[in-house]
Amino acid sequence: MSKEPTEKTHVVWHKSTIERPRGCVVWFTGLSGSGKSTVANAVDAALHQMNVSSYLLDGDNIRHGLNASPEILEPVHGAEFAKRFGLGFAAQDREENIRRIGCVAEIFCASGTLALTAFVSPYRRDRNLVRSAVTATGGEKDFVEVYVDTPIEICESRDPKGLYQMAREGKIKNFTGINAPYEAPENPEIHLDGSQPVERLAMQVIDYLKSIGKLSG
Amino acid sequence: MSKEPTEKTHVVWHKSTIERPRGCVVWFTGLSGSGKSTVANAVDAALHQMNVSSYLLDGDNIRHGLNASPEILEPVHGAEFAKRFGLGFAAQDREENIRRIGCVAEIFCASGTLALTAFVSPYRRDRNLVRSAVTATGGEKDFVEVYVDTPIEICESRDPKGLYQMAREGKIKNFTGINAPYEAPENPEIHLDGSQPVERLAMQVIDYLKSIGKLSG
Repeated sequence: MSKEPTEKTHVVWHKSTIERPRGCVVWFTGLSGSGKSTVANAVDAALHQMNVSSYLLDGDNIRHGLNASPEILEPVHGAEFAKRFGLGFAAQDREENIRRIGCVAEIFCASGTLALTAFVSPYRRDRNLVRSAVTATGGEKDFVEVYVDTPIEICESRDPKGLYQMAREGKIKNFTGINAPYEAPENPEIHLDGSQPVERLAMQVIDYLKSIGKLSG
Repeated sequence: MSKEPTEKTHVVWHKSTIERPRGCVVWFTGLSGSGKSTVANAVDAALHQMNVSSYLLDGDNIRHGLNASPEILEPVHGAEFAKRFGLGFAAQDREENIRRIGCVAEIFCASGTLALTAFVSPYRRDRNLVRSAVTATGGEKDFVEVYVDTPIEICESRDPKGLYQMAREGKIKNFTGINAPYEAPENPEIHLDGSQPVERLAMQVIDYLKSIGKLSG
């Protein structure tokens, strides 16, 4: 192809795929009510203000689309399709939930964006599989695990969606922290004390990202 | 939360989720060998040079991760998981393939990026479901369907992966254009004559995106 700029758009045509510097995946994990989403949102806003390209993946943009439930999929795609691909809360479904989110986060990372994710993601193995996939393509610094470590008493006292109460009443089975395990990260890049104010926690994350050279954009 | 800048990062903390202008989804469709990926890559490179945030979703970054085959998933996730979530080429699998890609493209669009996708996507219904999802959240201009209309004789003569030959020999079943249908878009935003040079086709796409105000970034 010609490399001369065209008159109309001043674009130089290149044959090869363009090279982009990778972003990274900032993976928040912790109990429901631990403050994951709140801190991740504050980090996202701070990065936006610093002109660093970032995006937050959380229940709001994942649960109704990519990882929709069988109930959401069935009217459009039929019962058999919905049963196969729709995600509930069984072990296999949770594993696929985290797998798909990890893949999307990796694509954002490859695009040069800092992908922030805020999901309970209670299983060490699932989180480590995402870490392996992301760091295998990029480097060690491309996956930053953030453990939002908040005592369950605080999480339960917040209970913004009333989920802990429902779990205590037996209306929700397999609720992490009540009747399903949470496997805390063993060597998270960032360990946050979730009882601290959100501004302080977000700053800790920003400072870490700076220290590993991810905020040069 | 305080809105005072902190000394350390000069960041103003906001409580609410930040508002981003949406990008859009530029959906290339056409036969294998039609030139979808080549044109999409050229558009991606041009946008990059114009400092417009864009990213190309294609087989390279989707097929080995998000939409991996059962064969790829099985060693890590087990046979039952792989059979359920892994994607082959059956009708249901193709439908889920396009659904997941559409959801990822919509997330990129929501993040303010121009998501380019290059997949055969032979079924009108599947493409229209993505269009509906993207435009329902955003507006009519958020989904741009690009029909790369290349005579099958040209596609077959290119045959970069030898797929047409294998299909002709009966080694691939359900190959679009040979023994599976391709449903051409009825009202694509952009109709490209795939026999033309790639620079000209890419320019047509860039000009269209300009005309609808998507290149202001």
